[in-house]
Parts: sequence; C-alpha cells; structure tokens
Amino acid sequence: MLSERENEAVSRVGPGTLMGSLMRQYWLPAMLASELPRPDGDPVRVMLLGEQLVAFRDTKGQVGLLAHSCPHRGASLFFGRNEEDGLRCVYHGWKFDVNGRCVDMPNEPPASTFRDKVRACAYPCVERGGVVWAYLGPRATPPPLPDLEALELPENQADVFAIQRECNWLQALEGDIDTSHFGFLHFGATRKEEAGPGTFLYYAVADRAPRYALVDTEYGSMYGAYRPAGPGRLYWRIAQFLFPFYTHIPSGTLGRQVLTRAWVPMDDHHTLFVSMGAAAPRPRRQASGSSRPRRAALRTPLRPNSTGWHGRFRLEADAANDYLIDRNWQRNGDFTGIDGIFTQDQAVTESMGPVYDRTKEHLGSSDVMVIRVRRRLLDAARALAERGAVPPGVDEPHVYATRSGSVILPEKADWLSATEELRRARVSHPELDLALETR
Amino acid sequence: MLSERENEAVSRVGPGTLMGSLMRQYWLPAMLASELPRPDGDPVRVMLLGEQLVAFRDTKGQVGLLAHSCPHRGASLFFGRNEEDGLRCVYHGWKFDVNGRCVDMPNEPPASTFRDKVRACAYPCVERGGVVWAYLGPRATPPPLPDLEALELPENQADVFAIQRECNWLQALEGDIDTSHFGFLHFGATRKEEAGPGTFLYYAVADRAPRYALVDTEYGSMYGAYRPAGPGRLYWRIAQFLFPFYTHIPSGTLGRQVLTRAWVPMDDHHTLFVSMGAAAPRPRRQASGSSRPRRAALRTPLRPNSTGWHGRFRLEADAANDYLIDRNWQRNGDFTGIDGIFTQDQAVTESMGPVYDRTKEHLGSSDVMVIRVRRRLLDAARALAERGAVPPGVDEPHVYATRSGSVILPEKADWLSATEELRRARVSHPELDLALETR
Amino acid sequence: MLSERENEAVSRVGPGTLMGSLMRQYWLPAMLASELPRPDGDPVRVMLLGEQLVAFRDTKGQVGLLAHSCPHRGASLFFGRNEEDGLRCVYHGWKFDVNGRCVDMPNEPPASTFRDKVRACAYPCVERGGVVWAYLGPRATPPPLPDLEALELPENQADVFAIQRECNWLQALEGDIDTSHFGFLHFGATRKEEAGPGTFLYYAVADRAPRYALVDTEYGSMYGAYRPAGPGRLYWRIAQFLFPFYTHIPSGTLGRQVLTRAWVPMDDHHTLFVSMGAAAPRPRRQASGSSRPRRAALRTPLRPNSTGWHGRFRLEADAANDYLIDRNWQRNGDFTGIDGIFTQDQAVTESMGPVYDRTKEHLGSSDVMVIRVRRRLLDAARALAERGAVPPGVDEPHVYATRSGSVILPEKADWLSATEELRRARVSHPELDLALETR
Repeated sequence: MLSERENEAVSRVGPGTLMGSLMRQYWLPAMLASELPRPDGDPVRVMLLGEQLVAFRDTKGQVGLLAHSCPHRGASLFFGRNEEDGLRCVYHGWKFDVNGRCVDMPNEPPASTFRDKVRACAYPCVERGGVVWAYLGPRATPPPLPDLEALELPENQADVFAIQRECNWLQALEGDIDTSHFGFLHFGATRKEEAGPGTFLYYAVADRAPRYALVDTEYGSMYGAYRPAGPGRLYWRIAQFLFPFYTHIPSGTLGRQVLTRAWVPMDDHHTLFVSMGAAAPRPRRQASGSSRPRRAALRTPLRPNSTGWHGRFRLEADAANDYLIDRNWQRNGDFTGIDGIFTQDQAVTESMGPVYDRTKEHLGSSDVMVIRVRRRLLDAARALAERGAVPPGVDEPHVYATRSGSVILPEKADWLSATEELRRARVSHPELDLALETR
Repeated sequence: MLSERENEAVSRVGPGTLMGSLMRQYWLPAMLASELPRPDGDPVRVMLLGEQLVAFRDTKGQVGLLAHSCPHRGASLFFGRNEEDGLRCVYHGWKFDVNGRCVDMPNEPPASTFRDKVRACAYPCVERGGVVWAYLGPRATPPPLPDLEALELPENQADVFAIQRECNWLQALEGDIDTSHFGFLHFGATRKEEAGPGTFLYYAVADRAPRYALVDTEYGSMYGAYRPAGPGRLYWRIAQFLFPFYTHIPSGTLGRQVLTRAWVPMDDHHTLFVSMGAAAPRPRRQASGSSRPRRAALRTPLRPNSTGWHGRFRLEADAANDYLIDRNWQRNGDFTGIDGIFTQDQAVTESMGPVYDRTKEHLGSSDVMVIRVRRRLLDAARALAERGAVPPGVDEPHVYATRSGSVILPEKADWLSATEELRRARVSHPELDLALETR
Repeated sequence: MLSERENEAVSRVGPGTLMGSLMRQYWLPAMLASELPRPDGDPVRVMLLGEQLVAFRDTKGQVGLLAHSCPHRGASLFFGRNEEDGLRCVYHGWKFDVNGRCVDMPNEPPASTFRDKVRACAYPCVERGGVVWAYLGPRATPPPLPDLEALELPENQADVFAIQRECNWLQALEGDIDTSHFGFLHFGATRKEEAGPGTFLYYAVADRAPRYALVDTEYGSMYGAYRPAGPGRLYWRIAQFLFPFYTHIPSGTLGRQVLTRAWVPMDDHHTLFVSMGAAAPRPRRQASGSSRPRRAALRTPLRPNSTGWHGRFRLEADAANDYLIDRNWQRNGDFTGIDGIFTQDQAVTESMGPVYDRTKEHLGSSDVMVIRVRRRLLDAARALAERGAVPPGVDEPHVYATRSGSVILPEKADWLSATEELRRARVSHPELDLALETR
C-alpha cells in the first residue's frame, strides 16, 4: 500500500515530476528501429514520458527525435519534409537537423543571424539491438548505454518487438516482478500431470504458493521464488528489476535465457512494452490446460500501426472488446478465457485503471518484490531530487550484464553463490550458446 | 431555481456526497434479475451511485455485488472465474464469495492467516419482483425492503424493464412528477375529438393548464392536477414521489394501476430507469394525433447490452442521432417528431445536459411538485448529515403501499379523503384486480 | 512570444473573458444564410463564442438565434417546433419569437401573467451578403454593420462559404496575416520558371524572404511585404487585419480583389472560417510545382453537415486522417503532400494544438504583423475592460470599406500614398469591375 502522495510520485512521468526526472537520467528505448525503415522516409509520432515528439531518419540514416512543435510558430514537424539531412517545417520552411540545429531559414533575409539563435528541442538518439534509444536528460554528454546482453545479439538471432499497454507504466511492470501470478493468470487450469513430470512447469503448478528470497543489487533488486522439486531439491525462479524500468523474468532456463523487457512510459496512461531477447524456436506443443488449442500461445495479433500519438503496437484484443474473452472457454477448462500470455497480462494490468490506486491494495507475501521495487524507485528519485545523487546504473553500464531464469538447486545450496556464474551475461564469451528453451 | 451549491448538492451521488449518503440509506434497484440468468454465469459490470461494481450469480443462485477492483492488487473481478460459490480473480487466484469473504488465497502458503484479514467490498443483495436490490449503506443489518406493491406481483403478471438515461437522475425524475408535460411532449398535437369524449385524454387535452394540489406524506409527497370533466366534475391526475427516487405516475386509472418507477443513479451523468408494474394488455389503438402510425407507442427498441459500464439498456434512439427525430412528421402533425413516449422523455431530459443547471430556470405554477420534491430531498439529506436523522420510509416499509392514477371526482369532493381507499395498495386483498387500463 | 497569462487572455472567448467581451461589441457572422433555407424549416445548432444557440427561420422569414436551453426547465429548443412565427419547446409548449418574447405559455392558466416575466435569451440577427449576422453584445440598440464591400455584392456575383477549423480562432487568423508562409506552405516547391516571368507568383517564389512595412489604421493594422520585381520596381503584397477577427489577404490584384475573411470563434477550440468575396472565375491552369495535378486547387470537399454543435462545414481532410497527406507526393515534388490551399492552412494551424502555447515560440522578422495584431487586440480588450473604451470600428462602419491585394510599384514610391486609391472600396461606384484575377 502506498499513500496517495507516494502513489502519484511513483507513477507520474511528465517533465518536472519526481519519477520523470529519474527516468530522464537514463537512455530510453523510444521506438523500434524498424519503425524508420529508410533514410528520408516518413516521420513518426512518438509519445515519450509525456512529450510529443517526431522521429525521422535523415539522408545519412541517422535518427532524429524532435519536439513535434516547430520552435517558430508551433506547426507540427510531423507534417515536415524529410529531405537532405533535415526535417523542414512546411509552414515557413525552417529546416532542422537531427541535432536540432536550424540549418535553413529561407523566409528570413540571407544576412539574418536569427537562424543561429533558434534550436529545435532535439534528443540524442542511438540505435542498438533493433531499438532506437533516446536520451531526454540534462547532461551535455549522455551516459553510456546499459550493457544489456540482448543489445549485442547478432541481428538474425535477435527477437525484438513492442506492445502498447493502456495503463501506467508501473502497474504494467509490477506484473513482471510478481512470479506468483504465473501459476494463475497463465497456467491456472494446468494440472501437473499435463505439465510433464520433472519439467519446471510441473513443479510450478504442483505448488502455487512458493516462498521468496530477495536481495538488492547494483542494478536494482533480484528475487528468487522457490518450492520443492523432488527430494532434497528446490525449483528456483530468479528474476530481476533493473533501473529504471527493466525486468529480467524467470521463465526461461537460467544461464540460457537472454531477455530484457522494458516498460517505457509513453505518458502517464500509456506504456510501451519493448521485449529484447534471443530468438526462441517456435513452441512445439501447447502449454495450456485446455483441450481447445490456443490460437497463439505467445504472440497475439496487433492492429496495424496508425500515425496517431497512441497508434503504435496496439493489440487487437483490448479493453474495448474485453480482450476477446471467451466465457465458455473459461467455464470449460481455461483459467481466463483470454488467449495469449501477453493479452492475459494486458487484461489484468489495464483493468486496474489508467493509474492504479495503491491506497486500496492488500499486499501479501508474494508481493515482497513489488514492495521493494517501489521503495527503491522512490528512494532513488528522492535522492536525485534532494541531493543530485546519480541513480543506480546510470554510470555503471556493466551492472546490466546479468541474466535471469529458472534453475533447480540442492535444498541446502545458497541461491546467490550457486547461481552467480549462471547469472553472468556471456554474450562476449566464445562459448555463447543461444539455443534457448521455450520460454 | 436553485443556487449553484444547492444544485450540486441535490444532484451528486458519489460516496461522501450529501445526496449519495441519503441514497445509501435505502435498498436500491441495482439491476434486473434477468441480467444474471443462471448460476455460475458471466459476471456483469454494474455502475451504481458512482461505484464500479461487478455482479455475479453463484452456484447456489445467490447474487453477489462486489467492488470490481480486487482488494489484492486491483485487477478487475469482471474477468474473474465464477465458480463453486465464488468469484475468483484470475490474476493471483484469490476467491471471494457473495459476502466478500476471501474463501481461497492459493498463492499464499496454506498456513497463512492473511486470507482472514482480506475482504472484498461486497454489498448485500436480494431479489424481488424481477429486480436485484442492493444495500450500499452503513448498517450491519440492512433495513427492510419497501412494501412496493409491484414487487409482490405474480411473475406472470409483472412487467419489469429498464432503460438507461444519459443524464443526472434528478432531471430524469423531475419529468415524472410534472404532469403538465403530458399534454405537450406526449399529446401536444392530439385534439380532444380524437381522444374520444369522456376519456381521461379528452379532458387532458381539452384543458392543458390544470391547477394543482399538493401534500406531504410519510413516503414523500403527493399531488393532484385537476381540471374540468363536464358539469360539476373534475378530472384528477394524482401522482407521488417516494423517497429517495421513486415515482408513481398519474397516467392509469386510480385504483387499478400498479406501477412503480425508479430513477436509480448509476453515476452523476447516467441513470437507470427501472419500471416495475403489472403487465398491461397491448394497446389496441393509437393515441397519437398523427395520421402516421407510431411504430411503437410505448416501447422503443434497445441496443443489445454490451459489457461496458454504461452498456446496459441503451435506447437505439439517442442524443447522437437526435432521437431519430423526423422533422417532416413534426411539421405535418406530430408534436415532437420523436417516436415513443419513453424516447420523448429521454430526449428532453438528456438535452438539458449531463447535470442540468437549475440556476437559470423559471418555474411556473405547474412546477409546484418539482419545487417541493427538491426541498424534501435536500431537507432529508441535511437532516441525515447534520443530526443522523433516519430519512423517510427507511424504517417504515409499509408507507410505500400506495397507488397513483387518474380519477373523476365531484367538484366539491375533498380529493384526499375521496381517494383514500383507491390509493391503498391491495395486492394482499382477495379482490385483487389486475386488469388494467391502457396506461 | 506571449506570457501564459497574455496567451490565455488573447485566446479565450467565452462569456466574461477579456477577448470574449471585446468580440461581443461587434456584429458576428454566425452562420450562412443558406443553413436556414426556408421559413419554418429545421432549427440548427450554432456554437458561437462558447455559447450553445439554436437558430431558426420563422414564418415571416426572420432569423432567430436563441440560447438552446429553454428558460423554463432547460430542455433544448433544438427539438422545438418551428411554427407560426415562433419556436415552441416540446416539453411544455412554451413558444418564443425571434426576439425571445414568450408568445405562448399554454400550460399556465390563461389569466397568468407569468408569460410576460419570462424571456428566452435571444440575439438580434440580420442577413447580409449571404451571412446571418448576430449581435451578442450589451447594447440595447446594436451598432451598425461594418461596411464590408463583400456584403454589397449582387447575389450572383458573390461567393460565400465556410469551413470549420478545429483550433483556437487566433492561431487560425494568424496564418492569414503572415504572407511569408505563402511561398512555403502553398508554393514551396514551385520554381519561378513554372510561375511564368512577370507574374506575381514569379516574384514571390524568386525571393521568399521579403521585407515588411506596417502601419496601424482605424480598422486595425495593415502591412506590405515587398521584394524586387525587376529593375527599379518592387512587388508589394498588401494585407489587412480588421477588428475583431477579419482579414483582407494580399493574394489578388490590389484594386480588383473584393474579399473579406472572418475567423469567428465558435468556442475556444473551434473556429468558423467564413469567406465572403466576389466570385472568381475557375482557375484555368495548375499553380502547383508538382507534375501531379492537384485534385482541387482551391476548394476541398466538405463532409455533409450534421446537426451536432461541431457538425458544420467540416473538411473531409482532417487531423484524424492527417489531412490525407500523400507522403510520396511530398517526396517527389510537392511541398506538403497535402492537397488544397485551405487544407494546407488547416493542417498547420490545427497541428499547433487546440490553443497554441505562445510561450514557446520564436518570432522572426516575418512575424511583425502577427506581433502587432496581438498587441492591438490585447490593448483594445483591456481598454474596454478597464475604462469602457469603444473598440476600433464598432461605431465607424465606414472604416471597413478597404481593399487588399498585390501590386507592383516603383522602387521609390511611398507605398501608402501610391496605393491609397486602389485600396478604396468601390462597390457603390458605377465603374465597378468585378472581373478578378485568379486568387
């Protein structure tokens, strides 16, 4: 439970807010690189931390990210001409490069120096791992990018995609650091016999009330949920929160899973979920407990992107159609009646409302990580606001080189030391093995 | 005319408001029983007094009405599994019975006592007369249901239906205690010759400016509108307001009409009109003055219910289509060009805006009952707020056993004593006669 | 740049606002006369200066403009019966004439004097030049209409039309007093060779950064943008702002162009652009620099009017469809990829947001007229508010008898004296010549 004031503080991300200021210390995944497929192509509207921006790829292939409002008289640069290394406002012809410099001001006399006094609001961008990263922060020289293993994957082994969620970023993220929901929302109707003896899923559904261990780290926090896995052994699901909004989830095999999930606030009510990971082989069999085959166990269909501020990466199954819930399917075996893991997550977190009111919640032992992460976020944001403390990870990119996943350990083992090697990102190692378990 | 402050006070119904607190003293018609057709069926979203609720019928057939937000982490119970005497949240599997008790918390260890500390917000419900009644108030033991005659009708003689109105409850209700509009909005183009000499309608359209008598009662207020009905006789239309939002309208024959209409606030901008009465035979002839036959004099088509908070019992004819007004019909004989009595009422009361601004009105002699009822509502709400006075009728269910309707009396008769017997509800009497006039 | 407070002051137009009070001193173009095609026809919803009004044409052909809310109990007079010189509310039959007098109150006793005490809010209207003019101000006797030449045109020589713009009135108007955008938004891709040597367009695109002269006038402000037009000559584009929201644009030939454009605030976020001018012959050739023919150089298709408050004169190309921008066309020769001059203007001014935030702009030398007009508006509005000063033109209708347009002058000529005769409206002169250049 949070007070109303804390809840506002941890949720709001616009310019000048506590959490918005924290996030502006970091590089942010602003969009997929594939949204700007070619030089001099169409500009794209991007909503990020409550700011209305326009992205474009210039003639040299560089990405620019400008405030959409022209600094002259405010016409939207979305309608601009993307031409010869700059975006030209169609109202009076002012042209800006990716750095925000006004490189042409053709409605002023040639001798005018006014051009040098005008700058568009432009944010530095780099492309890495199929994602356009933007820095909206105060430093003249941005910090380094985080050493996320997923960003180093060869292109043909990477799987990057995005889904927009219509709710505040934090309640979306909290679903990812809450392994407890896995055995209900996603596998609530699966019996252990169906899961197959000895599989992770077998142990997960055999005991749906695990215990928890938690530790703070340089990058954020890590926890393990553990339960019996046969005589003398425990099944550990180990997952991580990394500042300011990344998760490493416990679903794959620890040591083999390469996956980072980002919960990027578009604005207070919309979140861009960006999944960056190693490409998984298609699942061979159905994991659901239902006799009815799932239409798509992992991916659910997206609507075509539109050009609107909130028109990107929207699921077809959404609040307006109750996530295409099939009540008969729910009655006759499936747990939710909602098809697809992503859609199930979408349904519950969006159903909490645009910004979840945490003054009314009742947190149990399974919510220990949720509680811890909120605390760390608020502490870091306040430390920044009150004494300018650089938040975790901003200047230590290497701390992001870590992995999460599931593992079976001897009952007596210390989970931290026993998994230290498995949690180390190995992308730069020669023995890199990217053949991954079905997540 | 009301001051802005009074207007707000008498209109707003959310938790903690003056009028909202008054209404929470009473049982409320929350929904039709037919909306929950079978045990373990689909949950239904119910908006009531500004609260977002989920209704479900459990395995035993009992109706539950819970705050839609799970007390754990706020996922909507609308997506819950309705199973074995409880509604189970699909996020983490917490299950609640119709009383709000948490009867299963499977993601906590079996030994945990946390389950006993968590309760869902649940409101007591009973079914009567085809309606699900809910009590949202503070008493541990709710008061008795009102002795509304319509609730005692045998199922095959009852006619219960609902229509959503997109405006504040009070302006909707005020149309019902304003008999003056009858001769305009509904019969403005009807000539007395068409009505047929000697019928109620004949006298109503022969003199469209009746005089009024008014009296306060134990259940609220009653008035009679009277006008000549031939030598030495008066045609009386007698109608009632019953706390907190019921009306008994004057249209049928006094002594034979069994009909209660409820104006239940869903929220400040939406009202559920619930009509509970004895089934009327289909009307045999058209009452309209137009040569064009009305498509449906009494009932107008509803859109199919959707699952949204405001998706229940919406008329096809609505503000977005100007209530399907036919201007040529209006020009050539009909008064409004709008088809159907319910739709006509809907059009004028919704057109006043979401909450009618009563600082600008000009009330005439025909508005005496409107003025009186506002005063009684405000007085009762303030008496409750200031000194805890139990509002009228809460603990006197018998006062609701009354009837309204039209009657012809000798000019010299005292309307109150002359109609005392006719106004008495007779459902429990052996001589019950439910053959009703066309309303 | 304006302060936030000044920006609010100059933008908001509702009752009681600074700018709203200024505008209420003048006659306003409320709607086209053609929207009320016949006596006793359908009423029309009109939003004007933030007020919800209903217009109707009575049996005698007079136009009435009433507050839509019935003064009795607030039902919308939009649903009223337009009959025998009055609009009758269908709720209780009260009937109002075009002056707002209650001419019938049939639900009150015949002897009642209540009728004389009730007035509908009614605004005086006159028809002139195909436009219904309304006076929403405080004077018992309205001021004279402005002597706008376009209002005196014979009907068969007049061209009057309207387009709704979804943004604040001032940013819409500012596009009209900013000749600098002409060479970009509308002709940014046109080469002078295409324009044809010696034409106005030739000089306009040969030098897209003209210099400016500006002068205050009795009606508002006037400016000229000038640039070379061959040896010893200058091409002058002369344009005017006339209180409170009119423009005379410089595109036609000075001395021959008869055209007034009004930017009438419907509410803070919607503007009715009303163009009143002499009918132009259809353009014979394409002015665009593109090889692809424009579908309609001047007029763009409108959606059919609906009955809603904002349902009148909407372009088919709007924000929701990005003004039907064709990015390939923009890439391959056209400047904007948006078809039609009106739509191009619409796109840039609407893209600034509902009310443009002028605290962030950077005004250059081409914005001198924009700056001046804002100052004059604020000064006049404050003078009215603070000491009751009658604003410019209210009581001097003759000052509106002026013309704008393009002209070539000797380099040494004084632009004001050299154009004095050409700028004089000549409609009443026998030598009136309405054959106009293609605008």
